Amino acid sequence: MNTDRLCRSFAALTIFPEMFDAFWATGMVRRAIQGTYIEGKAVDLRMFAEGVHKTTDDKPYGGGCGMVMKPEPLMRGIRHLREEIPGAPVVIMSPQGKPFTQAVAESLSRERGMILVCGRYEGMDERVCMQADMEVSIGDYVLTGGELPAMVVMDAVTRLIPGVLGGDESAEKESFSEGLIECAHYTRPPEYEGEQVPEVLLSGHHKAIESWRLESSLKRTFLKRPDLMVDRNFTREERVLLHKWSRELARFAES
Amino acid sequence: MNTDRLCRSFAALTIFPEMFDAFWATGMVRRAIQGTYIEGKAVDLRMFAEGVHKTTDDKPYGGGCGMVMKPEPLMRGIRHLREEIPGAPVVIMSPQGKPFTQAVAESLSRERGMILVCGRYEGMDERVCMQADMEVSIGDYVLTGGELPAMVVMDAVTRLIPGVLGGDESAEKESFSEGLIECAHYTRPPEYEGEQVPEVLLSGHHKAIESWRLESSLKRTFLKRPDLMVDRNFTREERVLLHKWSRELARFAES
Repeated sequence: MNTDRLCRSFAALTIFPEMFDAFWATGMVRRAIQGTYIEGKAVDLRMFAEGVHKTTDDKPYGGGCGMVMKPEPLMRGIRHLREEIPGAPVVIMSPQGKPFTQAVAESLSRERGMILVCGRYEGMDERVCMQADMEVSIGDYVLTGGELPAMVVMDAVTRLIPGVLGGDESAEKESFSEGLIECAHYTRPPEYEGEQVPEVLLSGHHKAIESWRLESSLKRTFLKRPDLMVDRNFTREERVLLHKWSRELARFAES
Repeated sequence: MNTDRLCRSFAALTIFPEMFDAFWATGMVRRAIQGTYIEGKAVDLRMFAEGVHKTTDDKPYGGGCGMVMKPEPLMRGIRHLREEIPGAPVVIMSPQGKPFTQAVAESLSRERGMILVCGRYEGMDERVCMQADMEVSIGDYVLTGGELPAMVVMDAVTRLIPGVLGGDESAEKESFSEGLIECAHYTRPPEYEGEQVPEVLLSGHHKAIESWRLESSLKRTFLKRPDLMVDRNFTREERVLLHKWSRELARFAES
């Protein structure tokens, strides 16, 4: 299926739809909507709740503090959105989910849309989670609700849709896209408060700049995120650098 | 220092301050502001930029696509906020940062505030990053800017400030707080579309409910996030469960 020029439909099911207003209206997401690369809406869960109070939560079975999101409004909302965006995966934002990574974002960017279900309180009734296509967690920390995670997922996915980033920006060669963190960046002025831009970047020597950038990237990954290096298939050029540093360090160790 | 009843000051330095409006106005963060547990503001980086165009970005040295955030407006903004909130750490939201975890959130919740610097474009001039107290990344994926990450950090930190979560909610016994993911939650009705709530949760037998919850939590962690189990110091009760499952699985394997 050629989904390159398909307008993706994103829907977030939430009790705080207004949290998304500025998200749709800002920066790249706004441009993606204007360019009909995506359409996005936040749907109020209370529309699917019953009674005067439009209750969406209830006490947990087995006791304990905290409230649990009721199954009926969530399931009604999910069914409604599944009919509106057929084939779009239902993704529950949950700290118990599979970790959201750039690879997950890439896979979601090939779908025709997403239905993002935002939890609040202690969590959702487990019977709802069983109906989802996927549960994702944006990181190992506790948040008050799934709204910010849903925006994080939509931002990461939108920028991967072909055409969304213009020529001035680039989804290639970015942090994690190639499994290393990015090289250091510099712009004018060449000297700022005594700190200089590295000479090579001012040299105009493209090959030297490319190697400086690879070296900066690899060094920063080794310093800041050694975990990213563990399973990496290093290129020949990268191996040369690693050997060089290894020898340097051995020399220091013996001195 | 007793920071329990200190009003924490959060400031986000950004070119999109309006993205934060709904964040300050919703749910727990709103209540924390009303209760003077925190005060929060988004400060427009352009206030610190010069010229008619209030430019905050410029081309990267060494060429390439993408723009880099200029050092001067950022450093002016950071200095201004450091004077306003003395002692608050300057935290740069960056994919190259140290991974943000619940432990980092706990440590930040003990500070008197935070100055969160939100990048856009390809990144910031490296000389700004050198001036920060901390660079954090909310996960291994690429986002368009640091605004959503800054809100994620503030949300996670705010809920840990003593007094912010009322008696009905609880920062204890939550996902990752004890290094395991949460047990399954259920609320009414007892049967929903053929799916039953586990019997024990309806029993009123507190001890049995507690063990069911621990078992659910441990099993979900093993199935969904085995990585969280690697360095865990299991309690005696947990070890008993692990032994039991190990024997069960061995029996299946041999049958």
